[in-house]
Amino acid sequence: MNSFGVIFRVTIFGESHGPAIGIIVDGCPPGIAVQQEDFMVDLRRRQSGSTGTTKRLEPDLPEILSGVYDGFTTGAPLTITTRNSNKISSDYDEFRKIPRPGHADFVSRQKFSGYSDMRGSGHFSGRITWGVVTAGVIAKKVAENAKITAKLISAGGLEDIEKAVNEAIALNDTIGGIIECRVENPPAALGEPFFYSFESALSHIVFSIPAIKGIEFGAGFSAAAMKGSQHNDAIIDENGKTATNNSGGINGGITNGNEIVFRVVVKPTSSTGVDQTTFNFEEGRMTTLKVKGRHDTCIALRMPVIIEAATAIAMSDLILIDRGIHGSRSR
Amino acid sequence: MNSFGVIFRVTIFGESHGPAIGIIVDGCPPGIAVQQEDFMVDLRRRQSGSTGTTKRLEPDLPEILSGVYDGFTTGAPLTITTRNSNKISSDYDEFRKIPRPGHADFVSRQKFSGYSDMRGSGHFSGRITWGVVTAGVIAKKVAENAKITAKLISAGGLEDIEKAVNEAIALNDTIGGIIECRVENPPAALGEPFFYSFESALSHIVFSIPAIKGIEFGAGFSAAAMKGSQHNDAIIDENGKTATNNSGGINGGITNGNEIVFRVVVKPTSSTGVDQTTFNFEEGRMTTLKVKGRHDTCIALRMPVIIEAATAIAMSDLILIDRGIHGSRSR
Amino acid sequence: MNSFGVIFRVTIFGESHGPAIGIIVDGCPPGIAVQQEDFMVDLRRRQSGSTGTTKRLEPDLPEILSGVYDGFTTGAPLTITTRNSNKISSDYDEFRKIPRPGHADFVSRQKFSGYSDMRGSGHFSGRITWGVVTAGVIAKKVAENAKITAKLISAGGLEDIEKAVNEAIALNDTIGGIIECRVENPPAALGEPFFYSFESALSHIVFSIPAIKGIEFGAGFSAAAMKGSQHNDAIIDENGKTATNNSGGINGGITNGNEIVFRVVVKPTSSTGVDQTTFNFEEGRMTTLKVKGRHDTCIALRMPVIIEAATAIAMSDLILIDRGIHGSRSR
Amino acid sequence: MNSFGVIFRVTIFGESHGPAIGIIVDGCPPGIAVQQEDFMVDLRRRQSGSTGTTKRLEPDLPEILSGVYDGFTTGAPLTITTRNSNKISSDYDEFRKIPRPGHADFVSRQKFSGYSDMRGSGHFSGRITWGVVTAGVIAKKVAENAKITAKLISAGGLEDIEKAVNEAIALNDTIGGIIECRVENPPAALGEPFFYSFESALSHIVFSIPAIKGIEFGAGFSAAAMKGSQHNDAIIDENGKTATNNSGGINGGITNGNEIVFRVVVKPTSSTGVDQTTFNFEEGRMTTLKVKGRHDTCIALRMPVIIEAATAIAMSDLILIDRGIHGSRSR
Repeated sequence: MNSFGVIFRVTIFGESHGPAIGIIVDGCPPGIAVQQEDFMVDLRRRQSGSTGTTKRLEPDLPEILSGVYDGFTTGAPLTITTRNSNKISSDYDEFRKIPRPGHADFVSRQKFSGYSDMRGSGHFSGRITWGVVTAGVIAKKVAENAKITAKLISAGGLEDIEKAVNEAIALNDTIGGIIECRVENPPAALGEPFFYSFESALSHIVFSIPAIKGIEFGAGFSAAAMKGSQHNDAIIDENGKTATNNSGGINGGITNGNEIVFRVVVKPTSSTGVDQTTFNFEEGRMTTLKVKGRHDTCIALRMPVIIEAATAIAMSDLILIDRGIHGSRSR
Repeated sequence: MNSFGVIFRVTIFGESHGPAIGIIVDGCPPGIAVQQEDFMVDLRRRQSGSTGTTKRLEPDLPEILSGVYDGFTTGAPLTITTRNSNKISSDYDEFRKIPRPGHADFVSRQKFSGYSDMRGSGHFSGRITWGVVTAGVIAKKVAENAKITAKLISAGGLEDIEKAVNEAIALNDTIGGIIECRVENPPAALGEPFFYSFESALSHIVFSIPAIKGIEFGAGFSAAAMKGSQHNDAIIDENGKTATNNSGGINGGITNGNEIVFRVVVKPTSSTGVDQTTFNFEEGRMTTLKVKGRHDTCIALRMPVIIEAATAIAMSDLILIDRGIHGSRSR
Repeated sequence: MNSFGVIFRVTIFGESHGPAIGIIVDGCPPGIAVQQEDFMVDLRRRQSGSTGTTKRLEPDLPEILSGVYDGFTTGAPLTITTRNSNKISSDYDEFRKIPRPGHADFVSRQKFSGYSDMRGSGHFSGRITWGVVTAGVIAKKVAENAKITAKLISAGGLEDIEKAVNEAIALNDTIGGIIECRVENPPAALGEPFFYSFESALSHIVFSIPAIKGIEFGAGFSAAAMKGSQHNDAIIDENGKTATNNSGGINGGITNGNEIVFRVVVKPTSSTGVDQTTFNFEEGRMTTLKVKGRHDTCIALRMPVIIEAATAIAMSDLILIDRGIHGSRSR
Repeated sequence: MNSFGVIFRVTIFGESHGPAIGIIVDGCPPGIAVQQEDFMVDLRRRQSGSTGTTKRLEPDLPEILSGVYDGFTTGAPLTITTRNSNKISSDYDEFRKIPRPGHADFVSRQKFSGYSDMRGSGHFSGRITWGVVTAGVIAKKVAENAKITAKLISAGGLEDIEKAVNEAIALNDTIGGIIECRVENPPAALGEPFFYSFESALSHIVFSIPAIKGIEFGAGFSAAAMKGSQHNDAIIDENGKTATNNSGGINGGITNGNEIVFRVVVKPTSSTGVDQTTFNFEEGRMTTLKVKGRHDTCIALRMPVIIEAATAIAMSDLILIDRGIHGSRSR
């Protein structure tokens, strides 16, 4: 279940402290120009460094193992990996017996009967989103005319994000945030009824990203307090342009050609510097845990580019499915 | 793309005013007791009749076409249908040229190049959720010990739902609402990393249901304003029970055995009795539309049972996948 | 697992003596003209009546439940069913305890823990290939320019098929046969490396048809005794036309534009009028069974149209996948 | 489409002369012991070296990039790769304009609009079956009690395979062969009606392997000349043991617990040392081509282990699906 997509199909692999992490992109059309440096802008955006993120300077360089020849995609699966290095695994030994609250430690042990690689959170690590961003770079090329932009619009409940981060650092605690993503100039007619609506495809991939706990499209949760006559977006021209955009560019699960808008919530990182109550499974009693080591105060700072990548991947799959069934459209 | 699920696989079909609507449930274990009356409680809950819903008295009776013999599932695909009747299609002719704002009329015509059956909104009609509820009855039997309960917790922005509905009726307008769903005694260890997390599977199916525009798990969007030390749920016993439940029973995309909690927002029905601005595509100019006929003031009133069904379907698929990979667990 | 195809997706259901059998075709492009009489030619070819087949005169009429409006496909899933009638189930009671040798009786009971509907062989009945033929009629329209023709080229080891059938009737026994299928004017470039080669897709669906036990493409098994220099097909023009066709129109799993040629073997019907040794599971001892009732002497006579349908379905799926990834081609 | 399987899911990647080839195995149960040396026996069997194969001495060493920790599978996807080395690509330049007859050169150029990596046949190379064998080693562990054995039973039409190879070498030509595969002690009840029969799953993966042009189960094509009373396998004990095995251990698409038997035909390698007619697409005229370089006289010699691996992969997927739907069986 480490694959997403029906035609444009992404498969992710790797553990935080294993030999390598990576991604396979299958079903990618041939003839798309790809070079190593194309990945670097987005990988740097994902990388830590700014206040509120962990201190690593340069992103991991991608190596293309297959699917690109002479600077162009070939139609064969693209495999892109990076080696793990500078791994310090000793921190993680105790989480097997004393799982961190809010973290995947407990479920990981249960799910895999004790066999999961828990070093650096293993396959559950946010580190493997490197592959999502990498695949997203390819996907953005497939969805060529659409311009996908995600931004952190609040953190820790504040719109002044720098202030929120500094306050959290002072408390040795962590904060979450809300990311808004907009797609300008999106293809119309994307989304397949009944079970592969645009929102279904997008939320499916977005909820694979660690720490995401909610998503809303257009007016989202605020729609619950609106009247139908307010929420409906008046159509004002022959291209289907609407006066408002409460639907977030999607009606009946299908894009209507207006800007796509959605927001996701990122929960605060579970590893905080504050004492936490949890259970010691070896000794069979409750205990207190303080997580050591450097951690992100606000992981949400690094996530807009991951949300963009996920959006591009879902859109690319929907574009190829639509083209398969309906032929090339003039949109 | 009218199928959902990897092993427990549901395929939906039908149009509002076509001959019949229905559902196929494939991958259902043999030996589950099923009778026609098992469906009636949930189908009645979905049915209209109360204030704020359209006036049809009895739900459509299910006919089991395959997959059940002598009162038990056989292991072959279950097909369950109902005939459409009392269809008045004349209302819908004009929506092809003058699409209702907020509705699927415009995208439906675009997506299917003018060939879609627009009578009663065709395949986009809320009517085909009859099949979701029907499949949900089977799925609830597969997820046997889990108790799934969804409720409308607010409508039109009010917790007094009756008041909200009456106000909307007085205005000849419509309202949305928020539904909360809880799963008591859920199986632990459901959800497959990376791309089939519990939230991925659930949101995928939930966003197939017409009018859903957002979903949040546990503390959801409010997590954005919490500190990590507040949001983390302290583990307090050897079964992984937690003191709070901000995660909504899910860590790292996998159920942790605590109650599953999520909320969805239902937008107000787009068909209101209020004048709306839209575009006349035949005449190439903006126009005003007032939708005639009986419609739901608050479609959200009928949706809790649909959300329960969707939850049961997603859970059944995750249960069978988990059992395939890991064998039967004692949970 | 009652579905086939990635985009053009066929789902089959029904039991021989249940209320109805049928098929759903999802992912079908909108705008294809479909009427009830379009199905009749192929359904008649599948039907019994000639010497060597059971005596039923007219095929079961298809009813279109969804996906067609005003004579054209709408883009929503097509559901086509027919009611079962004239079912005499009493014959089948004893096969639960005394399984017919060569038949699915034994495995059906094992697989489904005794819950399978064994009347008329239930979901294992050749009767449900009605749905394959019905879906094939739609698929032939999707693969419009390709001309698919299957023929029985030998039966019971003889090319004089009438003679073979009469000999078998005289012995109260049954015979198998070999069917050859040719696709003239096939689309080139169909088939997806690595795991969805043309042969993979085609053999996958063909081996779903009851009684098929082998398939070979082009020179097939005789290639084992050929030299490479003999087997290779010389390319003789700029369209890739070849002088010979030992590859059956497929290289590297992809159609090369030459005629597609393959053969399948149909085993003799297991229900014969001859005494057979089998096991009485109720009494725990070996026994002798003579199957009563009317049965096909040579089921292979009715199968060419089923093979054509399976071919059309696999091709349609490959056409839509290829178009999704590569866009519309001028072939 | 470079993935196979529903739960136990194998994804293949790589080109002959690219940086690396490899495989991802997803859905593999945790807790299976895996070490690098486990792969070597099967990889050596696949390797060249004996008379009639190309002269490379040692197989490519597998590197496990993910999914194994402390000697056991973790439940996360296994990624196993090997680097390509000693690549001489200059030979392949001319095949773009003058495709080798019988080879994938022509279709590869067509399918991928000229972008495919044709060096060493790229993604179409037999070299990438390295990944199939590697995944097969894991799959054989999943299907633990079943003993899968494939053998070359004839080559170039002769049972004396050494003689056949020497004759072909003398002619500077190539030969094909027939491989028989047997599975002793197979699990019963594998195979899912209607569209994922045992034969469907197995033939699907087997026809992904380059050079396979036919498959038959049990009596196979010879069944066409048998009477039903001869072909039917008499059941002789309470476990379903049969006196003969014309069905190849499969009835109705489901394993019956008897030995599984099937045969595949391998066509002769298309690269021969003999002059071949083909087309020069640059100059628009027919031409003669003699393929230089070292090549396998009889590639079939190296293929039994690949067929075993494919069988193990298909069986593992069917085992996990069956366990998902039906729970653990005592077989």
